[in-house]
Amino acid sequence: MPLTDIATRTYDHGFRLDPIVRSLLDTDFYKLLMLQLIWKRHRETQVTFALINRTRSVRLAEVIDEGELRAQLDHARTIRFTKKELIWLAGNSFYARTRMFRPEFLEWLAGFRLPPYQLHVEDGQYALTFAGAWAETTMWEIPALAIVNELRSRAATHGRGRFALDILYARAKAKIWEKVERLRALPDLALSDFGTRRRHGFLWQRWCVEALKEGLGERFIGTSNVLLAMDADLEAIGTNAHELPMVAAALAPDDATLRAAPYRVLEEWREDYDGNLLVVLPDAFGTEAFLRDAPDWVADWTGFRPDSAPPIAAGERIIRWWQDHGRDPRGKLLIFSDGMDVDTIETVYRHFQGRVRMSFGWGTNLTNDFRGCDPEGGDALAPLSLVCKVVEANGRPAVKLSDNPAKATGDPAEVARYLSVFGEDGRITQTVTV
Amino acid sequence: MPLTDIATRTYDHGFRLDPIVRSLLDTDFYKLLMLQLIWKRHRETQVTFALINRTRSVRLAEVIDEGELRAQLDHARTIRFTKKELIWLAGNSFYARTRMFRPEFLEWLAGFRLPPYQLHVEDGQYALTFAGAWAETTMWEIPALAIVNELRSRAATHGRGRFALDILYARAKAKIWEKVERLRALPDLALSDFGTRRRHGFLWQRWCVEALKEGLGERFIGTSNVLLAMDADLEAIGTNAHELPMVAAALAPDDATLRAAPYRVLEEWREDYDGNLLVVLPDAFGTEAFLRDAPDWVADWTGFRPDSAPPIAAGERIIRWWQDHGRDPRGKLLIFSDGMDVDTIETVYRHFQGRVRMSFGWGTNLTNDFRGCDPEGGDALAPLSLVCKVVEANGRPAVKLSDNPAKATGDPAEVARYLSVFGEDGRITQTVTV
Repeated sequence: MPLTDIATRTYDHGFRLDPIVRSLLDTDFYKLLMLQLIWKRHRETQVTFALINRTRSVRLAEVIDEGELRAQLDHARTIRFTKKELIWLAGNSFYARTRMFRPEFLEWLAGFRLPPYQLHVEDGQYALTFAGAWAETTMWEIPALAIVNELRSRAATHGRGRFALDILYARAKAKIWEKVERLRALPDLALSDFGTRRRHGFLWQRWCVEALKEGLGERFIGTSNVLLAMDADLEAIGTNAHELPMVAAALAPDDATLRAAPYRVLEEWREDYDGNLLVVLPDAFGTEAFLRDAPDWVADWTGFRPDSAPPIAAGERIIRWWQDHGRDPRGKLLIFSDGMDVDTIETVYRHFQGRVRMSFGWGTNLTNDFRGCDPEGGDALAPLSLVCKVVEANGRPAVKLSDNPAKATGDPAEVARYLSVFGEDGRITQTVTV
Repeated sequence: MPLTDIATRTYDHGFRLDPIVRSLLDTDFYKLLMLQLIWKRHRETQVTFALINRTRSVRLAEVIDEGELRAQLDHARTIRFTKKELIWLAGNSFYARTRMFRPEFLEWLAGFRLPPYQLHVEDGQYALTFAGAWAETTMWEIPALAIVNELRSRAATHGRGRFALDILYARAKAKIWEKVERLRALPDLALSDFGTRRRHGFLWQRWCVEALKEGLGERFIGTSNVLLAMDADLEAIGTNAHELPMVAAALAPDDATLRAAPYRVLEEWREDYDGNLLVVLPDAFGTEAFLRDAPDWVADWTGFRPDSAPPIAAGERIIRWWQDHGRDPRGKLLIFSDGMDVDTIETVYRHFQGRVRMSFGWGTNLTNDFRGCDPEGGDALAPLSLVCKVVEANGRPAVKLSDNPAKATGDPAEVARYLSVFGEDGRITQTVTV
């Protein structure tokens, strides 16, 4: 007869909820790198983040119960970094560097908790915003996305039979393994998990990450999820995100300062970080404009992460720019992370093989690809194009242009102003699927 | 942190082996029905069963460790029917009948244990035989097959990674569910699990059975596995097997008695059982011969289980025979159980729909179909055509002709004699895949 652990069962009876986020390390590594920079220089800047569901056809407020959403968000606010987590952050090496995080920053982290949120319903969608000190609100991005995505998955699977669920996950596992087997054929692949924000659920992401670890071996270089990196003894992967240039741009008092904002951000970054962390995210206001105005020292950085242009065109453009600046692309790094899946990874890998170092950040199509897996059919488990973006800094509107107009965010008048400053060159509309 | 059940872990440390057979109910229901008949009438008949691996290309003695095989067989010999099991056999209703098993029989069962076995290696195969009183040796058939099959699966999967194994089973689960979804489209399907003897493993069979229960609902009428029937509250399914006519035939002193043997067995059967248990297994010495010589009262039986002829031809032949005897086939039952899979189930179902009652026994292709599922490729998990057959009764050789000469067993001289008695009509060679 199977033994039942009575204590566990009894403990489970008392669950107020099954928490989606159970650790503040359950976030992307770049949030911690950026947080240290923000904490040092901009901690009192007031920044508002907002959840944006680009998949308007899914009326989230009709899918997810508001009480459950509040319960999960409230639970996340009760979490602190544990001693073990802080000791690991202090003692572990990241990107081959020890003491990545300064003791004073870790001391401050020990007292950190997620700030309040604002939530109401507008036209079937949740208007979920986080307003306050940047060093606090920035930390909501990933848990907020993870919570909303997992609540949606839970709503979709609620009430299903035990075996129907078993089949759902069996199919999804089989699907991932097909991908693993294809990726194994790429000998110099360097791939990492970037799927925290869009994951089907925490346990599923953990399964995916451990499967890649076993299936891809050295081709799997790590995960952006800090908790999983710690628990599975993997490298934590990540550099920086659009919020840095977006806030800098929003605060710019004039057009000249606005035009210089992306490079000012990089100057701050290189004061704190070096080596493989010197990766440019060039597309906040258009890659073409970024390259046109970039100072020569940007070409000394290790690499670029094109995040919204078609990957081959973007890579070719950046390689040409390096060559124009007299740098050898073979020593440089391109990180591809925009909606990648096995097909695009294979194509891009083969295209650039031998010409540049490459690394792939695999997100939604790793941790939330249930296409064809649902025994009930339908798209209740299709991933949402859900983001959590800076919308305001010190009361001024924030804007992202991106290389893909479909990914632009911000007030239309401000978008027009930004376009006049940075230009329209090189922007190509692509359908945003994830 | 996950709680560990220390007592269970400590207990596990002491495992001598992970037993494949843990209950004497982990057998096919028809063995118990036949056992009661044998115990009443023939308990002292000396019958030898032998394991026969028709898949000669798999040299089992090189795949399975002899020590492990002996340990599993020895362990099976330590098992007794438990009180709970005997009470369930006494109190449960089978085929809508209570008290199927007589109290004196159950009393005898309480003291039952599997008799000794004889094991040696011959040309890369295990020569595994069970000689002794029929009422004891008959009970080895299913556990012996289950043990050898599962040891082979374990050998094939030994040392594989945790996620590679997870994928193996994920694929196999997804595969079964595709089948379930197809079978759901057959509104009047009546299907049962006949997969104990050929199963990949006990836990896998249990998963398959519970998946069918959830996925097929009322179309899934039960399982031949008595233990799973008890544990999952399913009907135990099964009637009789070739060993009854084979022993009767082997003991026949002359050709006339030999020719009458299949009907004498049915006479004994109908003394003990009735209703849906009155199912003829006509092919031991050829269905054509059986029908030709059958007394009219055989047409009063509920149904037939054609087990080695092509199913549609066999079904048509039996329907014609019923009609020739003035019986309406629409009230009769055909049970198809020979190497069935979804394709054949669909074809046969559609062919006979509305003309006769049908039921399908789904064996190897349910509980041991890993085709295309093994991440390592190869056929290490392909099912074997493994049987455990009567080879001798009171020192006389036993023979099975079957409708398919590829399934015939027995001494060639005896096979020739049987052919002269029963005739060759209607025998069609088909490749035996499972």
